[in-house]
Amino acid sequence: MQVQKAVITAAAPSQNTLPLQQLVDRGGEVRTALQLIVAETLAAGVEEICVVIRPGDQEAYEQAAGTHLGSILFVEQPEPKGYADAIYRAKGFVGDDPFLHLVGDHLYLSSTEVPCAKQLIQIAAEFECSVSAVQSTRENKLPYFGIVSGPLVPRRSDIYEVERVVEKPTPTFAEQELVTPGLRAGHYLGFFGMHVLTSEVMAAIESLISVPSTEQATLSDAMEILSSRQRYLAYQVHGSRYNLGLTYGLLNAQLAIGLSGKDRDQILTELVELLASRTEGVPTE
Amino acid sequence: MQVQKAVITAAAPSQNTLPLQQLVDRGGEVRTALQLIVAETLAAGVEEICVVIRPGDQEAYEQAAGTHLGSILFVEQPEPKGYADAIYRAKGFVGDDPFLHLVGDHLYLSSTEVPCAKQLIQIAAEFECSVSAVQSTRENKLPYFGIVSGPLVPRRSDIYEVERVVEKPTPTFAEQELVTPGLRAGHYLGFFGMHVLTSEVMAAIESLISVPSTEQATLSDAMEILSSRQRYLAYQVHGSRYNLGLTYGLLNAQLAIGLSGKDRDQILTELVELLASRTEGVPTE
Repeated sequence: MQVQKAVITAAAPSQNTLPLQQLVDRGGEVRTALQLIVAETLAAGVEEICVVIRPGDQEAYEQAAGTHLGSILFVEQPEPKGYADAIYRAKGFVGDDPFLHLVGDHLYLSSTEVPCAKQLIQIAAEFECSVSAVQSTRENKLPYFGIVSGPLVPRRSDIYEVERVVEKPTPTFAEQELVTPGLRAGHYLGFFGMHVLTSEVMAAIESLISVPSTEQATLSDAMEILSSRQRYLAYQVHGSRYNLGLTYGLLNAQLAIGLSGKDRDQILTELVELLASRTEGVPTE
Repeated sequence: MQVQKAVITAAAPSQNTLPLQQLVDRGGEVRTALQLIVAETLAAGVEEICVVIRPGDQEAYEQAAGTHLGSILFVEQPEPKGYADAIYRAKGFVGDDPFLHLVGDHLYLSSTEVPCAKQLIQIAAEFECSVSAVQSTRENKLPYFGIVSGPLVPRRSDIYEVERVVEKPTPTFAEQELVTPGLRAGHYLGFFGMHVLTSEVMAAIESLISVPSTEQATLSDAMEILSSRQRYLAYQVHGSRYNLGLTYGLLNAQLAIGLSGKDRDQILTELVELLASRTEGVPTE
């Protein structure tokens, strides 16, 4: 399986300004979050990119894309009908091809030499099926994530055959239905915000959004359907994700990136000076 | 002197996206930098605000203004002709009134109960003249600031009668011409990015920009002229400024604001966890 396309969703009303925020990358260059997400995609060898946006946001996104603009097709989600619907807007772009999917309000930091998206694509290529990046997620974080469960793939310690996909389960439900081998007690496999999906996911979404419903369909709903139709794996990615939509999400992402990059010492020095001056009172320069 | 108007400049090509960036304020609320600057202005009792922007930026700024939108008049600087020219675009808004001037790419943090802009306006009201906020600035930072010098106002330790204004002086020039009483050796009075100006500054700028020149006129140039025509003071403000245009400017501003606000303990905790995990290698959650 060759993954050559990527779909980035950035159309949720609460997240649409996050890809426009500026951060400093590991190399010390000022970049928008959108540029960092696109860089993650390009580093995985994926150069055809579709970004799903809100109507009216294209100009701001074009500016935020900078030099990457030529690689990006913008597609609008006409109405805020939820996450699965946003992915479905890329149906024409995807065609019959598998694609990398990233959310537009997360940044990723690998703990190895291989970027997170590249790790994931390597697994998808090896197993020739849909794979979601997941990470061990403590019980108290269940309200924030889609959770998967299933047995380990034979002779692999970090890849699971997904049998169940549940959006934001309760701790009780998780304990009864979603316990997963190899994880610490009270831990589950939560979505990392990064997936390789086959084009069949569009048919799964279609079956969800064609039925009128008061609930907006999530990607978890679609993957629950897809997992009943074809093989679907979860991969415990080696890295961390930073959700920019949390209150101090941008700060935490910037600190994590900065402290893992070339300016680590400078940032630590400024941090210590700041802590000293804010404790003492009046900074004098 | 009653200051009821404020002019915020945000039209420089390199700084125009900075007021749109998101930060968390001392109270834990997510705000754009523009909202924080406007809040500084409102906290000083100034409610009529003019923001000078680049052509094409108004829509993004309107969104970034949030609930403050009703207080703001946007004025465009048609061509990027420099700092003094940008201020001059607010001439019609200012009329014959004194005004508070803030730059759109700085955030300010008072070290007292009184916000920086309010401190400055109190001095202007007391002395009935133009006053620039300044801070003691080390010699190695001279290339970044307008520098003023002059004697202390009698019986005041933090207010100076400005006699000279020089934009980005060399250390040699500063040592010969700009030494100021009461400062540590090698320190000068550098602009803080916040001023109260009488409307006569517009005439001073006019005399500068009406002459064709290859150099763009700065506010320092205008203040050098103004100081020869009327009283002009500098006030060592009790607080810190954070230049968002520096490479880690947003990070430093966010840390300074966060560490002085209600979420200080939360930020310190996350910082320690981050330092621990980035040192050890693979974070597991």
